[in-house]
Amino acid sequence: MPLLVVGSVAYDTVRTSAGLRKDALGGSATYFSISASYFSTVGLVAVVGQDFANSDIDLLRSHEIEISGLEIRQGKTFRWSGEYGAEDINTRDTIDTQLNVFGEFSPKLSDVQRGSEYLFLANIDPSLQLDVLGQMSQRPNLVALDTMNFWIDGGIESLYRVVENVDVLFMDEGEIRSFTGEINLVSAARKVMETGPSVVVVKRGDHGVLLFQGDDVFSAPAFPLESVIDPTGAGDCFAGGFMGYLAATGDLSNTGFRRAAMAGTVMGSFAVESFSVDRINLLGKNDIEERFRTLTKIMAFEPLAEGESLPWRY
Amino acid sequence: MPLLVVGSVAYDTVRTSAGLRKDALGGSATYFSISASYFSTVGLVAVVGQDFANSDIDLLRSHEIEISGLEIRQGKTFRWSGEYGAEDINTRDTIDTQLNVFGEFSPKLSDVQRGSEYLFLANIDPSLQLDVLGQMSQRPNLVALDTMNFWIDGGIESLYRVVENVDVLFMDEGEIRSFTGEINLVSAARKVMETGPSVVVVKRGDHGVLLFQGDDVFSAPAFPLESVIDPTGAGDCFAGGFMGYLAATGDLSNTGFRRAAMAGTVMGSFAVESFSVDRINLLGKNDIEERFRTLTKIMAFEPLAEGESLPWRY
Repeated sequence: MPLLVVGSVAYDTVRTSAGLRKDALGGSATYFSISASYFSTVGLVAVVGQDFANSDIDLLRSHEIEISGLEIRQGKTFRWSGEYGAEDINTRDTIDTQLNVFGEFSPKLSDVQRGSEYLFLANIDPSLQLDVLGQMSQRPNLVALDTMNFWIDGGIESLYRVVENVDVLFMDEGEIRSFTGEINLVSAARKVMETGPSVVVVKRGDHGVLLFQGDDVFSAPAFPLESVIDPTGAGDCFAGGFMGYLAATGDLSNTGFRRAAMAGTVMGSFAVESFSVDRINLLGKNDIEERFRTLTKIMAFEPLAEGESLPWRY
Repeated sequence: MPLLVVGSVAYDTVRTSAGLRKDALGGSATYFSISASYFSTVGLVAVVGQDFANSDIDLLRSHEIEISGLEIRQGKTFRWSGEYGAEDINTRDTIDTQLNVFGEFSPKLSDVQRGSEYLFLANIDPSLQLDVLGQMSQRPNLVALDTMNFWIDGGIESLYRVVENVDVLFMDEGEIRSFTGEINLVSAARKVMETGPSVVVVKRGDHGVLLFQGDDVFSAPAFPLESVIDPTGAGDCFAGGFMGYLAATGDLSNTGFRRAAMAGTVMGSFAVESFSVDRINLLGKNDIEERFRTLTKIMAFEPLAEGESLPWRY
């Protein structure tokens, strides 16, 4: 298995300024694996209840996602309900969380899964993330981790223990500030890199991402969209594009990471164009490459040539 | 006069997480003209009181800023006092505003000033901005305007009248949303362009800028800084670099505007590295060009070559 994700599969009820969508397919591992599946073979480890729809299993299968690790337990699937700010789509309130079978999630990797070369630990209890890492039969080429404020506020010690064992840390601005106690993002990223990860990706919603690797910084803007329907899953689709690109190319150079951030940005931009996985579910090669090329143009300018100067008055 | 700015010269008292600075040189026209002066000859039209320090006049003169339009009136110089959020440096509260002589500001342009080829209407009463525009002996090559929420909430009709007569509008995210009633920035920029301006620059603080020109979008990140002392004047220094670059090169193509946004980003990044004009006051050619080249690297990635594909699973 080149790329494995361990995370949540859920039914989400989401309200945004575009409307309300009830009990629709969501969850970090869902978004991640669909996004990554365009680039790489991907296996999913998660748990759902007996209410999980066959049509949703078919949807995952249609992306050739390896779902032998999708455990079906007695009980109901994880349900999350939230609402995004009408004025600022980067802010959201959780209305309700019903863990259901996800509350007893205890991932057990198969032999094939233990040998995965790329591993994404999506946002789950850090002690489970650490447990999964311990199950690997060999150190993967690359381990990436996502988390959220809940684990920073509630389980920071076990979070530190797993973070020091991963290569890539994904966090949003607020999370990395809480996690490190540093307001400044450059300082915060440096502090994280001192604990273990060699790459830090700061997600800034519709302001794009910053990629830190040692002293190197790469800044990618979000893709400017006229219609944003629902931001749920954007970060996981970003991570899916990022890790899928790396797993498919095996390019772990700085050049590879920068391109991975671009691929991630493109995939995240599709995620927000619909509720649930509606848009990310139906992409073609051309959709993805066209947007990658458009994003390239959006970031393009004429650099100073060797020996060229800016106009100078004096 | 290639480039003229009409705006405020002030004494600012500013508190940030880095400390407190009392009664230091500030004001939109001050920041703008110092920033632009590295690229282009610049003239300043503003009003100060009799308390305005000779050393500050010397400082403006040291940048060869043409200050015959700096009126010295009976009374005190405009004073502004504000405080920036310790958690989020993009937010600020105004503690106190004393308009003093700025309350009676009534800009009168000299014959030379009326012939300026580039005009920046900094953040003042829109009816004064309109009056200045009416004083021009010929339509400048480029007229740009900055404003703030105060004029959007309080004088939106006269603001609309001046906006429809300018080429470039600078606004921050909150301002353009209030001004247009559109939450989405792409829609908001389009709405502004329908009223007159051909270029819209959305300033996003430490998240960079978006430059809209017709259907074209350019996104420039902020320069990632480990030490941010005081954001006051960053937007005006951005505009100074932007307009200074255009006035010096005369390049009003899309390529020119994109490079102008890069020059503006570089100048804005220096502004925040100190209180008042301390840092922006003391730049060398190398400081500016080195940062321009570093910013170029921060935005660089390997684009898809003609005919090249992203990895594709299917």
